[in-house]
Amino acid sequence: MNDRIYATYLIETPYSLEKAAAVMAGEQSTGTFIAVPGETPELKALHAAQVVGIEALGEYDSPSLPGSYLPPGSGKPIYRRALVKLSFPLHNIGPSLPNLLSTVAGNLYELREFSGLRLVDLELPQAFGDRYPGPKFGIEGTRKLAGVYGRPLIGTIVKPSIGLPLSEYGPLVRELAEAGLDFVKDDELCGNPPYASFEQRVQTVMAEIERAADRTGKKLMYAFNITGDIDEMKRNHDIVLQAGGTCVMVSINSVGLPGVAHLRQYTELPVHGHRNQWGAMTRCPLLGMSFSAYQKMCRLAGVDHLHTNGLDSKFSESNDSVAQSIQDCLTPILGGYTVMPVLSSAQWAGSAIPTYEAVRSLDLIHLAGGGILAHPGGTAEGVRSMQLGWEAAVQGIELNAYAKSHPELQEAIRVFGKK
Amino acid sequence: MNDRIYATYLIETPYSLEKAAAVMAGEQSTGTFIAVPGETPELKALHAAQVVGIEALGEYDSPSLPGSYLPPGSGKPIYRRALVKLSFPLHNIGPSLPNLLSTVAGNLYELREFSGLRLVDLELPQAFGDRYPGPKFGIEGTRKLAGVYGRPLIGTIVKPSIGLPLSEYGPLVRELAEAGLDFVKDDELCGNPPYASFEQRVQTVMAEIERAADRTGKKLMYAFNITGDIDEMKRNHDIVLQAGGTCVMVSINSVGLPGVAHLRQYTELPVHGHRNQWGAMTRCPLLGMSFSAYQKMCRLAGVDHLHTNGLDSKFSESNDSVAQSIQDCLTPILGGYTVMPVLSSAQWAGSAIPTYEAVRSLDLIHLAGGGILAHPGGTAEGVRSMQLGWEAAVQGIELNAYAKSHPELQEAIRVFGKK
Repeated sequence: MNDRIYATYLIETPYSLEKAAAVMAGEQSTGTFIAVPGETPELKALHAAQVVGIEALGEYDSPSLPGSYLPPGSGKPIYRRALVKLSFPLHNIGPSLPNLLSTVAGNLYELREFSGLRLVDLELPQAFGDRYPGPKFGIEGTRKLAGVYGRPLIGTIVKPSIGLPLSEYGPLVRELAEAGLDFVKDDELCGNPPYASFEQRVQTVMAEIERAADRTGKKLMYAFNITGDIDEMKRNHDIVLQAGGTCVMVSINSVGLPGVAHLRQYTELPVHGHRNQWGAMTRCPLLGMSFSAYQKMCRLAGVDHLHTNGLDSKFSESNDSVAQSIQDCLTPILGGYTVMPVLSSAQWAGSAIPTYEAVRSLDLIHLAGGGILAHPGGTAEGVRSMQLGWEAAVQGIELNAYAKSHPELQEAIRVFGKK
Repeated sequence: MNDRIYATYLIETPYSLEKAAAVMAGEQSTGTFIAVPGETPELKALHAAQVVGIEALGEYDSPSLPGSYLPPGSGKPIYRRALVKLSFPLHNIGPSLPNLLSTVAGNLYELREFSGLRLVDLELPQAFGDRYPGPKFGIEGTRKLAGVYGRPLIGTIVKPSIGLPLSEYGPLVRELAEAGLDFVKDDELCGNPPYASFEQRVQTVMAEIERAADRTGKKLMYAFNITGDIDEMKRNHDIVLQAGGTCVMVSINSVGLPGVAHLRQYTELPVHGHRNQWGAMTRCPLLGMSFSAYQKMCRLAGVDHLHTNGLDSKFSESNDSVAQSIQDCLTPILGGYTVMPVLSSAQWAGSAIPTYEAVRSLDLIHLAGGGILAHPGGTAEGVRSMQLGWEAAVQGIELNAYAKSHPELQEAIRVFGKK
């Protein structure tokens, strides 16, 4: 019962760092804007958040965000940045993910003592691990179901993202399954659209996957996007399970962490976690949340796979940030919580070498859309080119050198290498 | 089936506005980074998002957010701001709140063509109203349960926010109920803590409320914070209902919109919607979401009350923004969706006049913590001072003038008026 939750923030404030840290701790535990009866020393000793550490980072002339107030009587304002680490008594909330959010994030972002505030890391006591059993399948369970070892799972996304009629799903999935793909996912834009109902889509897709598995001996893992309201997710999960599917996908920020944790309770399939809307939470450097904190909560909620972007993607995230995110996913927390990072966006065979150099792991799902489907030799050659990229990466061979004896890779370089 | 969803964005981009708008529409419907087979003209005609309008707002020398890329071959970059309105075919997602989020927000925030992107408004077709019945009680149902008409509900928040032992809840609630308060809520930091279990807290609180109601004829509405995992919320709701409670509170961003919509399915009590963590979504002016868009989705999910901050609060939000948020809540959508705005933070009797001037409505829940509990005459006089503030506001009487014949108001001005 004496366990504590540790949360680290990047802050910017025109107040003294000590004052600012005290405001954070007060707002998110026992304090209010004016002293009230009942906030006794005994209560504070038991329940107050504590300032564990303050690390000053520099001073700036102008605020990063609007809306901060200046301390009374101050002259020309100075905006001080710092890392502030707080601790909260676990017994204030118990091991509850939704109440953790209200506590470590909550109203902090709105406080006028700050011109910037970002949650950058979280350390959670084992009680969270006891309540939330975490990913049910993880890396090992995913590899077993997909039958892929010793290299990343190579995957793609159904494109066009939205609008493909049911009549075209069958032929497309047949082609993908026969092309040797390990993994295919729905686009996050495609849930349960009226023009191609979820149930019919699952039947169509799984019929092709089973038929291809009979021929090839390998069963393609397809992540069906079950994102929906709470009961709808359960129905969708059951449809996939009944049809022999091996993966479900959910848009984490669309359904909320409790929605994911609820799915985790009953799922019999790995949960592919898509993080769309994540940019809104992280793109402003002095607001929101870092992926390091976010991914821990996603893992507790129970996703088995988690999107991280890929290197050199079409998104605004830097390669350093992407590599850090992948490493975050591969860093153990609370014992056995393994989660498989999912790399995507503008990926192709040539992405393997820089990715391997950055993260030194093969426990990845590597998705390419155009980089596989638009390969001039067709989808199978697109898949093969991705595998070859990883072979070159692991063997430490330069891409063009490896391509000399591998025409699928050569073609990939010719078409995708000039981006 | 030809209904469309309209979403308006504030954007900032170093690209031409036409190019930028086309990228948004493509990313969130049929497009990918490279042409793929299947994105036929027929499919695009049926499923592509359309650019409805572009309104240029000005040009800037520097980007609001990091991570944007410059168009190839460009010289000194110019960052153009604009309002861009897109429309999406409803049949791409059907009337689904979680899939709406993936579509109108989704990956947009991460696109490197933008140095700023914010969802500022949403217009939803009636199909959303058919699927999501919206607030079950709204303003009218809340007034009926609270027995308050012709003025705002006057409320407070249990303080200290966290840590109050069970033994102190009884006396505190008795005092609040006898002081004539209409409404009391748990702080969002207090959910189901191990040191004072939810069930015991509800029993203790409701016993006092019922006893006070027997004496006074008026039953205090108490919003118990049921925020938790999906099944836990249901259990907590049932505990409140069984105990005769008349309101439940939920942290919307902690449980997700599907979590709220799930609660809406079974609730027999008004849902008090707390928006903590909202600052992370809105405080950066060129990222995230405006309250106008957010509150529509919260109303669809089914909250009966929605926090908006109050004027002159301790938070960074401007008074103009607060007033706009209150008016957003009071603006009808999809027929009968009434939601009651909840004003809080550093409120006192003197907040009534500027609030009434700004929003010209009494359909509010007006919460004061210290502004009631720290009134020198005690809680009852604190409550009375708030009612007097609203009397002055409605009658158009200046606060100090009205206070001359009302000592409770005079004392409030003396203690809280110098902030």
